[in-house]
Amino acid sequence: MLFTYKKNTLKLQLMKRLLLFLLLPILVFTSACTCSTLAQSNDRVIKTPVPVRPAGQTDVLQLRAEPIPLVRIAFIGLGMRGPSAVDRIININGVEIVALCDVLEENVKKVNTRLEKKGFPKAKEFFGDTAVWRKVTALPNVDLVYIATDWVHHVPIGIQAMKDGKHVAIEVPAATNMDEIWALINTSEQTRKHCIQLENCVYDFFELTTLNMVQQGLLGEIIHGEGAYIHALQPYWNSYWDDWRMKFNQKHRGDVYPTHGLGPVCQAMNIHRGDKLNYLVSVDTKAIGNPAFLKEQRGVEVKDFRNGDHTTTLIRTEQGKSIMIQHNVTSPRPYDRLYQLTGTKGFANKYPVSDYALASEAVGDEIAKNHENLNAHSFVPKEVKDALMEKYRHPIVKDIEEKAKQVGGHGGMDFIMDYRLIYCLQKGLPLDMDVYDLAEWCCLIPLTEISLDNNSAPVEIPDFTRGGWNKLNGLKFAE
Amino acid sequence: MLFTYKKNTLKLQLMKRLLLFLLLPILVFTSACTCSTLAQSNDRVIKTPVPVRPAGQTDVLQLRAEPIPLVRIAFIGLGMRGPSAVDRIININGVEIVALCDVLEENVKKVNTRLEKKGFPKAKEFFGDTAVWRKVTALPNVDLVYIATDWVHHVPIGIQAMKDGKHVAIEVPAATNMDEIWALINTSEQTRKHCIQLENCVYDFFELTTLNMVQQGLLGEIIHGEGAYIHALQPYWNSYWDDWRMKFNQKHRGDVYPTHGLGPVCQAMNIHRGDKLNYLVSVDTKAIGNPAFLKEQRGVEVKDFRNGDHTTTLIRTEQGKSIMIQHNVTSPRPYDRLYQLTGTKGFANKYPVSDYALASEAVGDEIAKNHENLNAHSFVPKEVKDALMEKYRHPIVKDIEEKAKQVGGHGGMDFIMDYRLIYCLQKGLPLDMDVYDLAEWCCLIPLTEISLDNNSAPVEIPDFTRGGWNKLNGLKFAE
Repeated sequence: MLFTYKKNTLKLQLMKRLLLFLLLPILVFTSACTCSTLAQSNDRVIKTPVPVRPAGQTDVLQLRAEPIPLVRIAFIGLGMRGPSAVDRIININGVEIVALCDVLEENVKKVNTRLEKKGFPKAKEFFGDTAVWRKVTALPNVDLVYIATDWVHHVPIGIQAMKDGKHVAIEVPAATNMDEIWALINTSEQTRKHCIQLENCVYDFFELTTLNMVQQGLLGEIIHGEGAYIHALQPYWNSYWDDWRMKFNQKHRGDVYPTHGLGPVCQAMNIHRGDKLNYLVSVDTKAIGNPAFLKEQRGVEVKDFRNGDHTTTLIRTEQGKSIMIQHNVTSPRPYDRLYQLTGTKGFANKYPVSDYALASEAVGDEIAKNHENLNAHSFVPKEVKDALMEKYRHPIVKDIEEKAKQVGGHGGMDFIMDYRLIYCLQKGLPLDMDVYDLAEWCCLIPLTEISLDNNSAPVEIPDFTRGGWNKLNGLKFAE
Repeated sequence: MLFTYKKNTLKLQLMKRLLLFLLLPILVFTSACTCSTLAQSNDRVIKTPVPVRPAGQTDVLQLRAEPIPLVRIAFIGLGMRGPSAVDRIININGVEIVALCDVLEENVKKVNTRLEKKGFPKAKEFFGDTAVWRKVTALPNVDLVYIATDWVHHVPIGIQAMKDGKHVAIEVPAATNMDEIWALINTSEQTRKHCIQLENCVYDFFELTTLNMVQQGLLGEIIHGEGAYIHALQPYWNSYWDDWRMKFNQKHRGDVYPTHGLGPVCQAMNIHRGDKLNYLVSVDTKAIGNPAFLKEQRGVEVKDFRNGDHTTTLIRTEQGKSIMIQHNVTSPRPYDRLYQLTGTKGFANKYPVSDYALASEAVGDEIAKNHENLNAHSFVPKEVKDALMEKYRHPIVKDIEEKAKQVGGHGGMDFIMDYRLIYCLQKGLPLDMDVYDLAEWCCLIPLTEISLDNNSAPVEIPDFTRGGWNKLNGLKFAE
C-alpha cells in the first residue's frame, strides 16, 4: 500500500513539474496535502489529508453574487461539448458571447462563423497553444468562464479564472484528484466566486420530476440510491483531442466518470444539506475491453491498462443511507445511468424502463381512481405514471420545458442546465449546485482508486464543507 | 472490532449451550474455529479461521453415490415449504415418501391425508417436539432426508442425517454461520454423502437458458454479475413458526438471504470450477422498515434491530470478475432478483424486463435475418429474444418443461430442482450443486455481518474446497 502511494506521489510530482506555472495556486492552497501519506485509523477506514481552512476564510454555502443583468461569457474548449453549449446559450436572453478559445484555430472559426450566420456579433478569438486560455481569464469584460476542455486543464483554468474575478462553470468531471478538488474549494471560498460543475443529468425530466416527488414526501425517506455511467464509448474514443480520455482511463483505476450517476442521487438525499457521504468501498473487474479496442483499432498492445471494464462503488452516509455507483465504458450494453431511489414509501427506477412503485396511501384520487387497489409491489400503470409526471413536473421546468425540447441538448436537459445557471447569475441567486457538490461528486475518482489499490478497503470521504454539512435543511433551487 | 467479535463469540457460546446435544457433531469438527479470533493480514483483508482437513479425508467434488432406483424420502419440516415439496415430488417416478416430520401434529396430518387422497400410501408420522427429527434420521429405510425446517435446525439435522447414512437436501439458506458451513463440508467429506442446498432459482427458465448461452460463449467472458433478494415480506412475517425468521433478522446484520441472487451468478462464472470468490465488502442502511412493522402490527418497540433495510455486497473473484448482491425484505418495491450478467460480447438482464443485448457477430441468420443491423447498445427485438430462448433452451429442461409448468412451484423451477435431484440420485450421478456451492452461497450471511461491523472492511471468502477450486473445468450438469 505504502509502495503504491509512493508511486502515485511520484506521478503527482512529475505532473506538478510539467504544469507548475499553471498549478501554482493549487500548490499554495494544498501544501498541507502534498507531502503527507495516507493514514488509517483503528476504524479500518483509510483517510486522506484535509487542508485546514485559512484564517478568515468562510464557506460558500448559498453563495450570492451581485446580480448580472447581462452575462458576458467566454468559452474555453470548443472540441466536443463547447460548440453545442454556445448554440444553446444564444437562445437565452441577457447573454453576450465575448470570447471563444481553443487550442485548434478551426474549432474557434467554426463556432464564430455560426454565431455570425445566426445574426450574433462575432466573439474575440483565442487559439494556438495550451496556454492561450490565460489571456481569456485575464479579459476585463467577462463575467463567466465556461470551461469544456480536456479533464487535465479544467482546474488550472478554473482557479485562474476565479482569481481573475470571474465565475466559472466547468464540464464534468471538473476535478480528478484531491489536490485539485481542495484547490477549487479554497479558491471559491477565498475569491467568493461561483464554481459550478456542469452536471446536466440532474436536469433530466424524470430526475427533476422524481426529485420534486421526493421533496414532497411521496417516496418517504430515501434510504438507498443508485446511479451509473454505463456507455460503450468505442464510437467516440478517436474523437478526443490528443486521445486524452483514453490516456486517462489507461492511467487510472477506479470510477473516473462518477458525476452523472452520483449527482441526481446526492440531490435526492440532501448531501451536505443535512446528510454527508462518510466512506466508500470499490470493487472492479480486470481490464479487457479497452485494451482489446487499442489492439484491434490501433494495433497497440497495452499490458498495464489500469481502468477495469466494470467498477462498482458503495457509499455509506452519516444518516445511515447507502449509495451504489457503477462505471463501465466498454462492455456491449445498452446505455444506462440506473437512477434508482428506494424510499420507505415508494420506489423510482429509470432504466431500462422509467417507472414508479408507490404505496397506495401515497396516491390521491386525482392521480388514480380506486388508488386503494394500487400497491408498491408492482409498478404503477402507465396512466398513473403519466398523471404523476404531469402533477409533479418540477417548478423550474414549467416555463421552459417546450423551449428546452426545441433547443435540445440530450433531449433538453443541457438547455435547462444553462438556463438555470444564467437565470441565477442574472438575479444574484445561489446556483443550483455549489463547489461542495462538485467536490463530493468528483472525489470518487481519486478515492475509488485508493480503495481498489488496497483490496477494496474503506476510504473516508471528507466533509468538504469543513463543518457546514448540517447547516442547510435540504436542497432548494432558488427562484 | 475486538469488542464486537467478543460479543459475537459470547452469542455463539450461548446458542451452543442451548443446542449442545444437537450441535455436538459441529463442535467436534470445528473446535479449531470456535476459540480463535478474527485475523487481519497486511493486505487489509479480515480472515476467518479455516479448519484443517482431517487426515485421510478428501473433497467431494463430482461425488457419485451408488444408484438408487427407488429413492425413499423422509421430509422434516412441513410448515411453509415442506408440503409443496411433497406435492411436487410425488409426480416423479421411482420415489417413496417414507416419513413426514414436523413439530406440529396438524402439519403432518394435513400432508399425510393429502397423500392418501391422491392414492399414495400414508407415510410414517413424527411430531411433538423440536428433537423428534432425531428418530427420523435414524430410520433404516430412508435414502434422502429433505429438510425444510426453520434455519436454526437445518445444520444439526443435516449433519446427523449424513452420519446416519442418508443423503440430505436442505432448504435455503442451508447454513447461517461459518462453524455450521465447515461442519456440513467436513461431514459430507467424511461420510461421502451428498449435501445439497435446495436453491430453486438456478432452475428458473431464463436463468437456465442464459446459462446455456454463456456456456456456448454467446456472451463472451462474463466479467460482472448481479443478483438480489428484494421482496417485501410484510404479508408473510406472521406465518413463520415461532416467528423464527423475524427473530433472525432482528439479531443479524448483513445479507441473511443471499443464495437466490448469488447462486445463478456463481454458476455462470464457474465458481470453484475454475474461479473462486476471494473477498467481499458490504454496505447497509439503517433499519426502518422491520422495526416499523413490529411497532405497527404488534405494538413492539425494538431499538436495536440489527438487519438494515437494504444491504449491498460486492465480491471480487480470483479471475478478476466482480459480483454485486443485494438484500431487502421490507421496502415497498416490486419483487426483484436482478439476475444480470455483463459479458465481453453480450449482456443479459432479467428484472424488470428480461432481455438480451448481443454483438451482431454473436447472432446467426437462423436467429435474426439482417442480424448485422443488430448491435449490443440496445436490447434485441422481441422476435430475436424469443428465437434465442427457443434455440438455447437448456438440455435438462427439454423433456420436462411442460410437466414442470403443470406441476408448478414458482412457475415450474421448483419441480425441475426436485426432478434433477431425484434423477441424479437414481442414476448415481454427481448432483447439479455440491456442498461447496452451499458454502459459497451461504457464507455471505456471516461474512457480510463481519464486514458491516467493521466499517465495510474487506473480508476473505475462504476456498471451501481447501485447494480444489481449480480442479474442474467449468460447470456441467450430469446427464
